[in-house]
Amino acid sequence: MNILIIGAAGMLGRKLVAALIERGEIGGRRIETLTLADIVAPEQPAFSGAAETVAADLSLPGAAEALIEQRPDLIFHLAAIVSGEAEADFEKGYRVNLEGTQSLFEAIRLAGSRHAYCPKLVFTSSIAVFGQPLPERIGDTHILAPLTSYGTQKAICELLLADYSRRSFFDGIGIRLPTVCIRPGKPNKAASGFFSGILRERLVGLEAVLPVSETVRHWFASPRAAIGFLLRAAELDTVCLGQRRTLNMPGLSATVADQIEALRRVAGDGAVALIRREDDKTVADIVAGWPQGFDAQRALDLGFKADASFDEIIRAHIEDELGNSDVFSRQD
Amino acid sequence: MNILIIGAAGMLGRKLVAALIERGEIGGRRIETLTLADIVAPEQPAFSGAAETVAADLSLPGAAEALIEQRPDLIFHLAAIVSGEAEADFEKGYRVNLEGTQSLFEAIRLAGSRHAYCPKLVFTSSIAVFGQPLPERIGDTHILAPLTSYGTQKAICELLLADYSRRSFFDGIGIRLPTVCIRPGKPNKAASGFFSGILRERLVGLEAVLPVSETVRHWFASPRAAIGFLLRAAELDTVCLGQRRTLNMPGLSATVADQIEALRRVAGDGAVALIRREDDKTVADIVAGWPQGFDAQRALDLGFKADASFDEIIRAHIEDELGNSDVFSRQD
Repeated sequence: MNILIIGAAGMLGRKLVAALIERGEIGGRRIETLTLADIVAPEQPAFSGAAETVAADLSLPGAAEALIEQRPDLIFHLAAIVSGEAEADFEKGYRVNLEGTQSLFEAIRLAGSRHAYCPKLVFTSSIAVFGQPLPERIGDTHILAPLTSYGTQKAICELLLADYSRRSFFDGIGIRLPTVCIRPGKPNKAASGFFSGILRERLVGLEAVLPVSETVRHWFASPRAAIGFLLRAAELDTVCLGQRRTLNMPGLSATVADQIEALRRVAGDGAVALIRREDDKTVADIVAGWPQGFDAQRALDLGFKADASFDEIIRAHIEDELGNSDVFSRQD
Repeated sequence: MNILIIGAAGMLGRKLVAALIERGEIGGRRIETLTLADIVAPEQPAFSGAAETVAADLSLPGAAEALIEQRPDLIFHLAAIVSGEAEADFEKGYRVNLEGTQSLFEAIRLAGSRHAYCPKLVFTSSIAVFGQPLPERIGDTHILAPLTSYGTQKAICELLLADYSRRSFFDGIGIRLPTVCIRPGKPNKAASGFFSGILRERLVGLEAVLPVSETVRHWFASPRAAIGFLLRAAELDTVCLGQRRTLNMPGLSATVADQIEALRRVAGDGAVALIRREDDKTVADIVAGWPQGFDAQRALDLGFKADASFDEIIRAHIEDELGNSDVFSRQD
């Protein structure tokens, strides 16, 4: 099996590559070739099969065609610029997140018009496709009404994914990831950064800042769970999806207070002592518009598995990230 | 006021031009300039102000920029290839219905980046943005899950319309038109054609073929009502729309039997005698997936007005189309 991962240099991309290499197979088929693409060339992986790393900008002419020239059987399309950047730079957001995806879809369609070709395609969408007013639990049939350009771009890609799949140009599945927590690496400027930061920084003895009330509720999955979703999506027989090809992923609905209590249980009273509350109205206003929870029964029925508890999320982070002393230098 | 109508040579476009000229104003502002564009040059209208007719393909480079060079205050974007053609010719559908609209939106945005410019833009979407399974009455918050490429293209344009409006590149409003009935002109090959045909043909003494059961229910608006929606959309203060800029239009939910009984009431027993039932499974299967009714309360609250009855729809057709002997030669 020949697998192409677009966005392979990102946090989830690297973990996905590691998971695929560790498994050696997917859906019962041995992985023979890995092509890892990103805007900068991903690291060369330690893989016994063939592995190629490519620096590619999907939105440039010919880039998508080159990536699918070897006709990968399975394509993970994880590449995107993030919400904040897509909002700050309108043109770049549409160019990368929409035109880049359209180029990929078109390259696959045109390859198939020459010789039969219908790869499996796993696309990471986002809960940003939903916008206020929102119910307490958002179902799979909730209206797509994004309130950001990023969410708009993801929603459009979901619609294209469904239409290209309906026409059998590829066999697509979209998954709407919860906010990934604990996101490894250094603090970043994302409005959601504190959800990871208050746990991640305290686990290594650093002070952490909490910019919102402890009552704020949001929807989370660990990096482990997110990788599990990608693998499950790749293996799933999409016949069971019908025409609605994008799914809300299961997750944990938790308040900041729930996170802090889990940290206390796993790491002790000392761990929660240095979380400093410093209200930030801008962050609080942004977060107030975000989803608090989802009804992901459809995904659960299809075998997608959420984390069991926030305690488990924290323990997984300790195992995966803190057992290795150079963990921070390896992460973005 | 300077008005641009894209799709001005179509059935609704021509009726809209006539209505604008008859009114002479819109939203209390005198209409000074009309620019009528379509893939073929529209007829030159009899208008006391300035009127220009243009043959333009929006999807070609520079075409959209040229159309908005005079910075129209109000733009009606009605141009599209129809559902059947978009399904039969995938590339043409995306090129005209999606890229054409994107080109228009981008031309407006880029014009505004040079000198302040934020026109009102009225976009005709379609009930094809909805797909099975459907409730008996579809509300404005129903999920966009089209099952055709045409519906996908319209849904994507709705999302772009909302995002460009949210960013104040223009002041957009989308309206999802019911099936227009009685559609004037010659029979066409659209799967929906018989809804108009059984009435239109019988009103001029021709035999009419009914390919489905009389129990089939669908959602209708007369051409008069559709023009009323376009004018109301142009005048509406979009502040009351919030971020959800596309509305289900009100209509009449009626069965074929309801249509036939209305024809009998308006035109007598003789009119209904020559409707010949000739089952067509292909048409029946297509129509079975179509919406039967909508909850258009939001649009009603905003002053959009549906036809009162099918009797009224038939009488309006007689007044508007059969009072003029060359009516068929003027229609598409």
